[in-house]
Amino acid sequence: MIYFDCDYHRGAHEKVLQALLQANMQAHATYGYDSHTLRANECIQNLTQSDAAAYFIAGGTLTNLTFIRSCLRVYEGVIATEEGHISTHETGAIEATGHKVITLPSHSGAMVGKLSAAQVQTLMEDALYNPRDEHVVKPGMVYISQPSEFGTLYSVEELEALSAVCKENGLLLYCDGARLASAIGHFGNVHFAELALCCDAFTIGGTKCGALFGEALVVTNSSLQRGLKHVIKQSGALMAKGYLIACQFTALLEDGLYLEIGKRINGFALQIKHAFAQKGYSFLSDSVSNQQFVILPDVCAEALQAHFAAALWKQNANATRSLRFVCDFAHTQEDVNALVQAISTLPPAV
Amino acid sequence: MIYFDCDYHRGAHEKVLQALLQANMQAHATYGYDSHTLRANECIQNLTQSDAAAYFIAGGTLTNLTFIRSCLRVYEGVIATEEGHISTHETGAIEATGHKVITLPSHSGAMVGKLSAAQVQTLMEDALYNPRDEHVVKPGMVYISQPSEFGTLYSVEELEALSAVCKENGLLLYCDGARLASAIGHFGNVHFAELALCCDAFTIGGTKCGALFGEALVVTNSSLQRGLKHVIKQSGALMAKGYLIACQFTALLEDGLYLEIGKRINGFALQIKHAFAQKGYSFLSDSVSNQQFVILPDVCAEALQAHFAAALWKQNANATRSLRFVCDFAHTQEDVNALVQAISTLPPAV
Amino acid sequence: MIYFDCDYHRGAHEKVLQALLQANMQAHATYGYDSHTLRANECIQNLTQSDAAAYFIAGGTLTNLTFIRSCLRVYEGVIATEEGHISTHETGAIEATGHKVITLPSHSGAMVGKLSAAQVQTLMEDALYNPRDEHVVKPGMVYISQPSEFGTLYSVEELEALSAVCKENGLLLYCDGARLASAIGHFGNVHFAELALCCDAFTIGGTKCGALFGEALVVTNSSLQRGLKHVIKQSGALMAKGYLIACQFTALLEDGLYLEIGKRINGFALQIKHAFAQKGYSFLSDSVSNQQFVILPDVCAEALQAHFAAALWKQNANATRSLRFVCDFAHTQEDVNALVQAISTLPPAV
Amino acid sequence: MIYFDCDYHRGAHEKVLQALLQANMQAHATYGYDSHTLRANECIQNLTQSDAAAYFIAGGTLTNLTFIRSCLRVYEGVIATEEGHISTHETGAIEATGHKVITLPSHSGAMVGKLSAAQVQTLMEDALYNPRDEHVVKPGMVYISQPSEFGTLYSVEELEALSAVCKENGLLLYCDGARLASAIGHFGNVHFAELALCCDAFTIGGTKCGALFGEALVVTNSSLQRGLKHVIKQSGALMAKGYLIACQFTALLEDGLYLEIGKRINGFALQIKHAFAQKGYSFLSDSVSNQQFVILPDVCAEALQAHFAAALWKQNANATRSLRFVCDFAHTQEDVNALVQAISTLPPAV
Repeated sequence: MIYFDCDYHRGAHEKVLQALLQANMQAHATYGYDSHTLRANECIQNLTQSDAAAYFIAGGTLTNLTFIRSCLRVYEGVIATEEGHISTHETGAIEATGHKVITLPSHSGAMVGKLSAAQVQTLMEDALYNPRDEHVVKPGMVYISQPSEFGTLYSVEELEALSAVCKENGLLLYCDGARLASAIGHFGNVHFAELALCCDAFTIGGTKCGALFGEALVVTNSSLQRGLKHVIKQSGALMAKGYLIACQFTALLEDGLYLEIGKRINGFALQIKHAFAQKGYSFLSDSVSNQQFVILPDVCAEALQAHFAAALWKQNANATRSLRFVCDFAHTQEDVNALVQAISTLPPAV
Repeated sequence: MIYFDCDYHRGAHEKVLQALLQANMQAHATYGYDSHTLRANECIQNLTQSDAAAYFIAGGTLTNLTFIRSCLRVYEGVIATEEGHISTHETGAIEATGHKVITLPSHSGAMVGKLSAAQVQTLMEDALYNPRDEHVVKPGMVYISQPSEFGTLYSVEELEALSAVCKENGLLLYCDGARLASAIGHFGNVHFAELALCCDAFTIGGTKCGALFGEALVVTNSSLQRGLKHVIKQSGALMAKGYLIACQFTALLEDGLYLEIGKRINGFALQIKHAFAQKGYSFLSDSVSNQQFVILPDVCAEALQAHFAAALWKQNANATRSLRFVCDFAHTQEDVNALVQAISTLPPAV
Repeated sequence: MIYFDCDYHRGAHEKVLQALLQANMQAHATYGYDSHTLRANECIQNLTQSDAAAYFIAGGTLTNLTFIRSCLRVYEGVIATEEGHISTHETGAIEATGHKVITLPSHSGAMVGKLSAAQVQTLMEDALYNPRDEHVVKPGMVYISQPSEFGTLYSVEELEALSAVCKENGLLLYCDGARLASAIGHFGNVHFAELALCCDAFTIGGTKCGALFGEALVVTNSSLQRGLKHVIKQSGALMAKGYLIACQFTALLEDGLYLEIGKRINGFALQIKHAFAQKGYSFLSDSVSNQQFVILPDVCAEALQAHFAAALWKQNANATRSLRFVCDFAHTQEDVNALVQAISTLPPAV
Repeated sequence: MIYFDCDYHRGAHEKVLQALLQANMQAHATYGYDSHTLRANECIQNLTQSDAAAYFIAGGTLTNLTFIRSCLRVYEGVIATEEGHISTHETGAIEATGHKVITLPSHSGAMVGKLSAAQVQTLMEDALYNPRDEHVVKPGMVYISQPSEFGTLYSVEELEALSAVCKENGLLLYCDGARLASAIGHFGNVHFAELALCCDAFTIGGTKCGALFGEALVVTNSSLQRGLKHVIKQSGALMAKGYLIACQFTALLEDGLYLEIGKRINGFALQIKHAFAQKGYSFLSDSVSNQQFVILPDVCAEALQAHFAAALWKQNANATRSLRFVCDFAHTQEDVNALVQAISTLPPAV
C-alpha cells in the first residue's frame, strides 16, 4: 500500500530532524524567549519583508481558536466559506470560544473553496449583519485558507481585493496556511510578502509541510500583538520548550527548504492530476496544489484503492466517489510513478 | 398612527396588571420559592397534564441561552432553521455560550419557517454531523419556534414526527413559544399537552402575549431539571422577586386569558390577511397566527404606512416590499377596521 | 411576623407603580429606543453631572456579568473583596464569562467589606499579577459595592483614592450600587456625581430600592459604551420593553424619591442599631446604611425571630448567631417600633 | 553557567529521541488511531493495572483545561491549593473555560503544597459551597499535583483519604503529574496503580521528565471518557500526528526509563538538599523530589548564581531570597558535584 490519503501521517523532513537533534541538549530559555524563536522570527520577517511577530504553536486548530478569540470582541463573528476548516472540522472550536462562524456558500468553477471580495461586500450590506444593529452578530474578521480546502489558490489580485474590502468594512483578514508550502511552491517566496501585506495575520503550516509538528502564527498588524501571548498561554498554546517548533521553522525557511518542499509536492500532485485528466475523469476543483480531488466510478476507485490509499471525500449517489489524493514531503518519484501507472490502466471516463 | 409593527410595544393586559398590583405589598419568599411561583407551576402542570417544572425568566433570549447551555455538553450544537430566532436575532447568544447553531435551510410553501423531521434525519446522516467523528460538532438539540418566525404552526403530527426523530437520534427537542398564545389561540389549550409530550422543554411567552414581561420555561424532561436553577442564577436569569413573573402567568393561564388573547389576536390578524388577499396580494407564508407577512408595491406600502405602522421585513428589488402586520392584546376592533378599510382602497395586485 | 430579613420581598413604591400604570397602554419604541429611556438617561446625566450613558437591565447579576464581559479582554480578571457579591453569591457568573475574580481579604474595623487603595496597589506589585507576565491573570478592573456587603460606605476620599490607584495601574473601577439608595440616603444626591467622577461605571439599584425590578447601569467612561448594547443583547439583558425599567427610574430619580427612600430606610435601620447597641450587643460592622449585622446569643435570637424575620448570616460556634436586619421602602414606623420594643426586652449583653 | 533553574530547557532523553527517529518515516494513522497510541495506552494500562484510557496532549495547561471543561457542568468549580498550577500560573485558563478555581490555603510543615482530606471536607460543609444553594458555585472536582508545587509528595494514605472524601461528596479527583517521574522515582512504579485507584484521572508528565514534549492524560473513570475526544479536538489538543507523543511515552514507560529518570533526578536533588542542610540553611518545604527550595542570604545567593542558574522563587524582605534548584534528566553527576562543591564554600547559616 502506498499512502496518498493524507499529508501528515509521517514525521519530519530529514533537515528538520537534524535541527531538532542539534538543539536537543542545549539549555534553552523557555516559553519562547529563546534564541531559536528569535532567529525563526527574524527569518520570517525577512521572508515577509515586514516586522511581523511570529508565535509557534503546536497545532492548527489551537492556532485558529487562540488567534480568533484574542482579536474579536464577544459579539463579533468570523466570516468563512461553508467548507472552511473552522466551519466544519474543528468541532465548533471557534464557537466554543464564543464566536459565531458566519458561513458564505462555496463557489463553483475557478473560485471553488475561495471567498470573493464581492461576497464579503454583499454580506456586509445584509441587514442580518448590520454592524449598527445590536440584535445581530457583528462580523469582525474574514478567515480564508491558502490553499483553500479544495486546493485552489488565491491570486495576489484576489488577496488584494479581499484586503481592500476588509479594510473598508473594519474587518480583520486572517489566512490559515496549514498547507502554505504548496501555495509558496506555486507562487514562490514572494507570496510571503503578499500575505503579510494583505492579511492582518496568517499561518505558515509546519505539520503538513515537512515539520514534525507546529504552525507559525505570523501577526503583521501590530495592534493585534498586544496581549496575544497572554491569550496563547491561557489557551494552553504556549510551549514550555518553545525552541522545539521554532528551530524546525528555521530549518524549513532559512535556506529555502519550505519552497523546495512546496514545489516538490505540487509537482507530484500535478503528475497525478494529469494522469486522471488524460483518462477524462473530472475533478471537484482545478487544483494546482498538493491536493487533487477526482471523481471516479466506484469500480475504478476500488481497483486503485486496493494498492493506493486515498481519502474518501464523498460517496456519491451515482456509483461514483470523490477521492482526495495528496502528496507529502516524503513521497518519492517511484511512489508517484506507481500511482500514475495504475491510473493509466483504468478505463477512460465515459 | 395605529401601530401594527410589533406586539410588544405596550405593557400588560388589565388582568395581569391587577395581579401585579394585588401582590405588590405582600412579603414574598425570594428567588422563586414563593407561593405565586408554586401556583403558576401547578397551573402549568394542569394545562400540560404533566409534572413539568416551570421557571420564570425575564426575557426570551435569556431563556434560550440559559436552557441551551444547561443541557448541552461543550461539543454539542443545536439545530435550527436559518431564520430561527437563535440563528439570527440574538447577537450570537448561543455561540457566546460555546455552542454552534447548526442551521437548516428554510422550506417554501406550507413548511415556511418550520423544520421537518425528514430534514433532521438527513442532517443526522450527514458525515459533517456524524456523532462518532470527534472532528465535527455533535448535534445535541433541535430548536423550533411555535409559531415559527413566519407565523406558521406545527401540527400535532409534525411535532410528533420531530419528537420521534429526535428520540431516535439522541437529540433534545426544545420549542420557543415566544408567541405561543397565538398557537394556543389556533389549536386550543390541548396544544399545551402536545408540546409537553413531544418536547423536552418549551416556553410559554409572556412579553408578546399580554404580560408586562417574562417567559415561562417549562421543562418536562426531568433529567434536565438537575442543576438548572444553578445555571439560571449563573446566567443572571434568576429574578430576586420571582413572584413578579409567576403571578402574571397565573393571571394569564388559570382562567383561560391566554387562550382568549390568542384567539383575539389571531382573529384580528386573519381579518387583515383576508383584506390583503381580497386585493390579490401575496404573502411570505400562509400564516394563521397573529403575524401576517404581505408583499406590497412600494407605492401601496407607503400609502398604508403613512397611517399604519408596519415592520419592514425586506425591501425587495422590484419596487415591492415585504411588510409584517402583527396584532397584540391591546388592539381593538376599531384599529383593525381602520386598517382593513385602508387596505380596501388599495389598487388590486397586478 | 414582621419581615426584616430581606429588602426585596415586596414590589414597588406606589409612585413607581403609578409610572408603570401610566405608561402601560402607550405604544413605546422597543429595545431602549423609547422616550422613557431617553428621559431616565437625561435624569441620570443631570444627577451625575455627566454625559453618562445609562442602560436598564432586569437584575444585578445580569448587569454585573454583562458589563464585566464587555470590558475585559479574555485574559483579564476583576479584583473584588472576598465577600464581594461577584465573589460569592453569583454562582460563578463572572468566571462563567471567562474571567477570574481575584479576591482580596476583607478588612476588620471601619474598612469591613471595603477595598482600600493600598490593597489594590500592593496586589499590582505582586508577581502573581504582574501584567507583563503572560503566565498570570492580568488585573483589568476593580469591583466595589456601595454600600458594601456589610453595609459600610466608601467616603468620597476613599473613592478618590481607589480611582487614582486604578488610573495609575490601568484598571477600570466599577461600583455595584444594588443598594445605592442607602448610600445616597447617607451622603445625599451629591454622591451620584462623585461616583460618576471616580468610577468608569456604576449601577443604581432599583430592585432593592423601591422599584418593582431593574438596575440602571451608568457608564461614564465613553470608551466602554462602544458595542456595549450588542453585549447587553447577547447576554440576554436587553429588555424588549425597555421603557418598563426606565420609567421606574424616572419615578425614583426625577423628584428625589430615591433619596427619600434612602433616608427613610437608613433612619429605620439606625433605630434598630441603636436598640441593639443600648443592650450592649456587638455588630459585624459599623453600618450606617439599611443593613445591620448584629451578633446575638442563640436564645435571644430565637426569641426575636419568633416574631421578626431576620437573615441568618452565620451560626457561630459559641451559641451565638450573626443576624442581618434590613429595612425596605415598605416598612412603617410601626414595624420598627415593634422590633425596637422587642429588642428592649432582651437581656443585656454579657 | 550550569543550569538548575528549570527542568524543561533541554529536549528529550536519548532513548526517546531514538523512538521518534525510528517512527519518523512510517505512515501512521492520524489523530490517535495509530498503533503507537494503542501500544502506549496498553503500556499505561499495565503499569496502572487498570483499563484506563490514555490521551496524549502537547502541554500541561492544555491538558488541564481540556479535561476540566470536559468533566464539569457549567456551574461547577474545581478545588485547588492557593499555589496550585491552575490557581496561579495558567493565566486563568480554567476560568476562561467558565469554571471557578476554588482555592484553599496552603499548609505549613509537612503538608506544604498539599491539600488534606479534612480541608476538602470542611469546605464542603461551608455554606458558601453548599451544593443545594443555587447562588453559589458547586464544587465538582479536586485538583492536586503530585509532586506538589513545593516538591512534597502525597503518601498513599493521603491519596486514599482524599479519594474517600471526594467520593462521599460527589467530587471528582484529578491529579496533575507534570513531574510525576519524580514521585515514581520516590515511591516506585507501584504509585501508578495507586493513582489509578484513587483518582478519576491523572497525568503522566513528559515535558519535564525526559520527553521532548507531551503529557499523558490517564482517565480511569470510564464515564469521563464519553465525548472526551470531542472536547480534546475542540480545545485544539488533538495532535494530527498522535503517534508523536505516544511513541515517546512508550519509550519512557515500557522498559522502566521513566522510573530510572525519576530516581536519578531525585538522587541529584537530594545531594543538593543535603549540601545546603549541612550548612544549616532552611527550606520552603521538606522536598524529597527533584525540586529543592532553599532560603539563602542575598550575598550567598549571588555568589552561587554567578555560576549556577537557579529560579528566584521569592525575593524576601530580610535580605534573603528563596531559590529553586531543580534537576532534570540531562544533568550529570559532574554538574551536581560542582554545585555541591560551591555550596560547601558558602558560610554556614546564622
